Amino acid sequence: MDNFTFYSPTYFVFGKKEETNVGHYVKRFGGSKVLLHYGGTSAARSGLLDRVKSSLEECSIPYVELGGVKPNPRSGLVYEGIDICRKQNVDFVLAVGGGSVIDSSKAIAAGTVYEGDFWDFYQGKKVEKALPIGTILTIAAAGSEGSPDSVITNENGMYKRGASGEGFRPTFSILNPELTQTLPAYQTACGITDIMAHLFERYFTTSKEVEVTDRMIEGLLLTMVHEGLRVIEEPDNYQARANIMWAGMMAHNNSCGVGRVQDWSSHDMEHELSAIYDCAHGAGLAVVFPAWMKYVYKNDVMRFAQVASRVWGCSMDFSNPENTAVAGIRAFEDYLKKIGMPSTLRELGAKEEDIPKLAHTACFGDGRNGQIGGFVGLKEQDVIKIYQLMV
Amino acid sequence: MDNFTFYSPTYFVFGKKEETNVGHYVKRFGGSKVLLHYGGTSAARSGLLDRVKSSLEECSIPYVELGGVKPNPRSGLVYEGIDICRKQNVDFVLAVGGGSVIDSSKAIAAGTVYEGDFWDFYQGKKVEKALPIGTILTIAAAGSEGSPDSVITNENGMYKRGASGEGFRPTFSILNPELTQTLPAYQTACGITDIMAHLFERYFTTSKEVEVTDRMIEGLLLTMVHEGLRVIEEPDNYQARANIMWAGMMAHNNSCGVGRVQDWSSHDMEHELSAIYDCAHGAGLAVVFPAWMKYVYKNDVMRFAQVASRVWGCSMDFSNPENTAVAGIRAFEDYLKKIGMPSTLRELGAKEEDIPKLAHTACFGDGRNGQIGGFVGLKEQDVIKIYQLMV
Repeated sequence: MDNFTFYSPTYFVFGKKEETNVGHYVKRFGGSKVLLHYGGTSAARSGLLDRVKSSLEECSIPYVELGGVKPNPRSGLVYEGIDICRKQNVDFVLAVGGGSVIDSSKAIAAGTVYEGDFWDFYQGKKVEKALPIGTILTIAAAGSEGSPDSVITNENGMYKRGASGEGFRPTFSILNPELTQTLPAYQTACGITDIMAHLFERYFTTSKEVEVTDRMIEGLLLTMVHEGLRVIEEPDNYQARANIMWAGMMAHNNSCGVGRVQDWSSHDMEHELSAIYDCAHGAGLAVVFPAWMKYVYKNDVMRFAQVASRVWGCSMDFSNPENTAVAGIRAFEDYLKKIGMPSTLRELGAKEEDIPKLAHTACFGDGRNGQIGGFVGLKEQDVIKIYQLMV
Repeated sequence: MDNFTFYSPTYFVFGKKEETNVGHYVKRFGGSKVLLHYGGTSAARSGLLDRVKSSLEECSIPYVELGGVKPNPRSGLVYEGIDICRKQNVDFVLAVGGGSVIDSSKAIAAGTVYEGDFWDFYQGKKVEKALPIGTILTIAAAGSEGSPDSVITNENGMYKRGASGEGFRPTFSILNPELTQTLPAYQTACGITDIMAHLFERYFTTSKEVEVTDRMIEGLLLTMVHEGLRVIEEPDNYQARANIMWAGMMAHNNSCGVGRVQDWSSHDMEHELSAIYDCAHGAGLAVVFPAWMKYVYKNDVMRFAQVASRVWGCSMDFSNPENTAVAGIRAFEDYLKKIGMPSTLRELGAKEEDIPKLAHTACFGDGRNGQIGGFVGLKEQDVIKIYQLMV
């Protein structure tokens, strides 16, 4: 196990109706004027936004609203948010939404207290300071409610990049599984895929003897396999939603990923797709991840056999472990099909002729040095071949 | 899943040689004068104490020393520590040791800033404020490095009680697995047993549909089964020590225990043993836990069959699941024997004739209302029968 530090100081409030206490938590964590940041109309339609405003008003906390965050959140709205926070002396950013809203909030929170261009953080500068951030999560997926990460699409070139740093950890996150019960099946499935992808990115590693993190990841994957299928069958099953919601946080706060090399090339390849074709991130991952697995599994057949056996319940072929490894990848593909996810570039709206450009940007765009991936280092030619497996 | 809050703001620093940076972390978390609290002579003999002092001196941080913490830490030394901190204006408590030293440090840290008797916290008062606490862990066991809990033995009556509260979460904890490589096998095994007990106390629950926490606990138990045996065979195996050390923290910071009823009656029964006979807490748990399992498993045979199958690899007897449940308990007993743990009261120095007194104190001592246990409620007569199973 490699040396590491782990710091997750977010106060998590989990359960029914907890969003009605949000004013109390904003106060507790030092907010006196709030930017209320959200996405489209669903938070308003469902009455969630009204409950949040009531709670803020009860606690006499003034707020400024900024809605309109889109999936794959854009730099333009971030600049707008920074401008509002500065001009109106906002000292707390409250995100009401999913990963996109939270990521946009993080960018605004860091950008407000930074003299330079907030995009510097998305080109590698560590985020140390930011306005305090609170979240009310409406979809279990990105894990941004407990992570030090944010992903934003730069409208100047349409590329998607991540930033990271302790300043991005929310001060509190309210997780009410009820809020996810009304999600359309497709969005729910995208969230499930994203959570599983966060686990696989950590699972496929060159680090040896990392039993504790292997076993925790496997436990979370087993949860997703079981509860993911259940929630697609029974969308308003509170318990299934609750198990998925906590698994989504645990999958990405990194307690199960510490001290080991991680991969992340599938995320890099997917980011090019959702940046250009504006497909859902989870749907993109459903197409990318199995293709990546097929391309790289021969680099460590036994690790792929292990996950096939422990998570997918494939029986181990001791005379030819490769059969087990391949069976595990097939089981993942079958699972994705069952929850309604796509499997080809075409279904994402992506074009085969764009592959060279996609591969080039994935490997060289914005500060990258031509290679991606911690488990297997992939160069442009490898990435082209992986995209071709998605046709 | 029940509603819950989860807050673990400790900064964890994990890996080789990290104790040499302790001065830096004391500064980062606001300490300007330190109480250096430790146990017997081993920290001095191994050179650890010198390395810690050098680091504090390099960072120009003055310190006062208070050694002498014993296993099952006592109230007397806590009063002494509080007195020192107040008289010498100490503003940071640094624990160098295992759970006993950390628990004693927590009591001192809370008592110093509290007007009344620190024992109030051990009689149910929540710990909200305390001096900041840092830890350098020397044994993987109690999980106190990442928990909001502390257990102290009151010398006035020799009873052992726990206190809890956010004020008890350490600001930082340094976990260097190297420091545990020189532990005697018996102490290592006691630590392994304690970690597994923390997992079982959470696992046995009346809560339904708690897949995510079930699977995480099982993952950590599987880690302990594998790495525990390995470390007894190979005491200086860094990787096995590292996996156990992170599992020990995860087992007790409660991320795998949230939103579910927990049991804790085995800990209550054990505390009477170690308070009176001064046996090692882990050794006491090795005697108590299997006896408790045998007494209660019929209340939920399928849960016991589940852990038998998923953790101990027992094959499921579908026509008679009770056989599987019992096989799992036997597998745990065999495991404890293999790592060198005792199985009877006699081996702990406890006397059969004391059973009625032990059972009475466990159920009624110091604020208890005659019943213990969240999975199965146990009254005095039940507890007597469970102690008798240990004869």
